[in-house]
Amino acid sequence: MAKTADILENFGQRVRSLRTAKGLSQEDFAHECQLDRTYMGGIERGERNVALRNIERIANALGISIAELMKGL
Amino acid sequence: MAKTADILENFGQRVRSLRTAKGLSQEDFAHECQLDRTYMGGIERGERNVALRNIERIANALGISIAELMKGL
Repeated sequence: MAKTADILENFGQRVRSLRTAKGLSQEDFAHECQLDRTYMGGIERGERNVALRNIERIANALGISIAELMKGL
Repeated sequence: MAKTADILENFGQRVRSLRTAKGLSQEDFAHECQLDRTYMGGIERGERNVALRNIERIANALGISIAELMKGL
């Protein structure tokens, strides 16, 4: 299902874009989120169907709301 | 961890509020989302760590963006 795959890819691209805008390496950012670096890599590549608790961790690490993180998706 | 439990409860309350504002029963709404009614009940009670693909289904069924669905959380 292309539609459901897209949301994961779009979310991953959004996370990568916001992370790099903060000048953080994937490793440092994963550490901030208390997530494994390889898991974070999977998220950014759109391979992970990320759930709410981890979405919240990502938003917190970026210092933005979940709504802001989801903007444009 | 209270913090991570809260996001699930807040999300569930947000979904219930938006669903009832549309005048939909939980059963009809679950059907719209192509989700099981008991699973939807668990979401609204904050018992489910809902993942992106199902979050997208819920937003689509409500006719709003994911960012709008996440507003205030």
